[in-house]
Amino acid sequence: MKLVSFVHQGRQSFGATTAGGVIDLGARLRIADIGAALRRQPVEVLMDMAARHTADLPEADALDAYRPVVADPRKILCAGLNYAGHVRETRREVTVRPTIFFRVAASQVAHGQPILLPPESTRLDYEGEIAVVIGKSGRRIPEEKAFSHIAGFACYNDGSIRDWQAHTSQWGPGKNFQCTGGFGPALVTADEIGEDEILTLETRLNGQLMQHATTDMLIFSIPTLVAYCSTFVELEAGDVIVTGTPGGVGARREPPVFMKDGDMVEVEVSKLGVLRNPVRSEVAG
Amino acid sequence: MKLVSFVHQGRQSFGATTAGGVIDLGARLRIADIGAALRRQPVEVLMDMAARHTADLPEADALDAYRPVVADPRKILCAGLNYAGHVRETRREVTVRPTIFFRVAASQVAHGQPILLPPESTRLDYEGEIAVVIGKSGRRIPEEKAFSHIAGFACYNDGSIRDWQAHTSQWGPGKNFQCTGGFGPALVTADEIGEDEILTLETRLNGQLMQHATTDMLIFSIPTLVAYCSTFVELEAGDVIVTGTPGGVGARREPPVFMKDGDMVEVEVSKLGVLRNPVRSEVAG
Repeated sequence: MKLVSFVHQGRQSFGATTAGGVIDLGARLRIADIGAALRRQPVEVLMDMAARHTADLPEADALDAYRPVVADPRKILCAGLNYAGHVRETRREVTVRPTIFFRVAASQVAHGQPILLPPESTRLDYEGEIAVVIGKSGRRIPEEKAFSHIAGFACYNDGSIRDWQAHTSQWGPGKNFQCTGGFGPALVTADEIGEDEILTLETRLNGQLMQHATTDMLIFSIPTLVAYCSTFVELEAGDVIVTGTPGGVGARREPPVFMKDGDMVEVEVSKLGVLRNPVRSEVAG
Repeated sequence: MKLVSFVHQGRQSFGATTAGGVIDLGARLRIADIGAALRRQPVEVLMDMAARHTADLPEADALDAYRPVVADPRKILCAGLNYAGHVRETRREVTVRPTIFFRVAASQVAHGQPILLPPESTRLDYEGEIAVVIGKSGRRIPEEKAFSHIAGFACYNDGSIRDWQAHTSQWGPGKNFQCTGGFGPALVTADEIGEDEILTLETRLNGQLMQHATTDMLIFSIPTLVAYCSTFVELEAGDVIVTGTPGGVGARREPPVFMKDGDMVEVEVSKLGVLRNPVRSEVAG
């Protein structure tokens, strides 16, 4: 099943996509957000519900707008330096444990919505990634049970303001500018992806391939990330783990490439679709 | 006005403390959380409401339990390395911009509740700090307007698992173990604190003074932190900025001092009261 979060006729909701259009699950459950829905019932209940109904809305692209797949997650845990190519290009060392930092919900932006270049910087960079959405809450989840806690996967663009990321040792500010983190278009439920399946990730800027990797290249696998993060904090349904970006980011190219007003950035992951965001200069309010 | 978040007869609420007891504002507003209440109306409305009523609950210490002052903030932004003594003891350099990292709500614990030492570590450390609670949302808030966006202040213990903080360059894991960040006892509204008033901060472990500083020693002042953080993301009412810890943390002592089961840690700030937390070994579930 593919779930999308959207706005339709001014109303926020989410639903399952089918060939005939979207089945509005949010209206049936009276819950606007996938995260809140997953905290209320397992993803299997949403799948059953989708199987019992037919589309009642046009297809997702015809609705008013997408919202970030999980629009208001309680936690967004991001892995850094999780592909050898990116570790090398940043001239860092591979660590024994995963590098984990946080994004906040307000830094996210939906499929199709503009990623914003703030007036404070010219160094807006893309980071194509795969996001994991937690479906079943848990603390200290063993690696071998990690997949049973995952509702599904989606494309993510961990957009970064490089100079603000480098203000100090901690990356928080550069990773949390408003409307810089693309998340979509859809949550593809875990049953559609085999546990050992290798996914291919590509990032394109204005049609040009900038990043290409496969998930067997992850230094810390998805189960390892779930186990590690859940050791220090309970992973709740609706939480998001963003799994890291491969080599090829703009800031480490010669010469560097940064995103600017009018660009189009795409993150494509096999089976997960294409996350597409135009880039716009933010007009500071 | 002093606001406390609490559980009373199984019900979550918040209220204003008076000599005669607590005025239950949450019941009147049908809002359990101070953060949610501040998103709905300015703190001045809460103050007016408190002024029109008398206590209807026993005093705060007699209720079932405290909750973290803001139990479920959308964002907790923490300043690191914001007192010269702490910068020196960590053998780091003073940076031009504030060091900002994030905590998540689940890492917090209330006044009187145990701070937990997880079985994964023996290196649980205290960090006495002052928390700022945002009262009026804003983006790109100029320093000179920062105080008008602050609802009030409270004591915070930015409890840290030092070995997990040092796993990689990013401090997130060590700063986010469940139930390690003390927050309370009360939110003291900004009208009770002069803008130029110097507050005194002390941390005591089992009665022994471990940290002592005054807010004129902050490298980045509270208005500077508000301005910097609101540059990258909108500060929403109910958000929390934790302003950094002075020198004297346990990990940098000779020999190091870590907190253990049975300890009592206190953070006292002039005018803000005493945040008191017993330390307990967590029994992993």
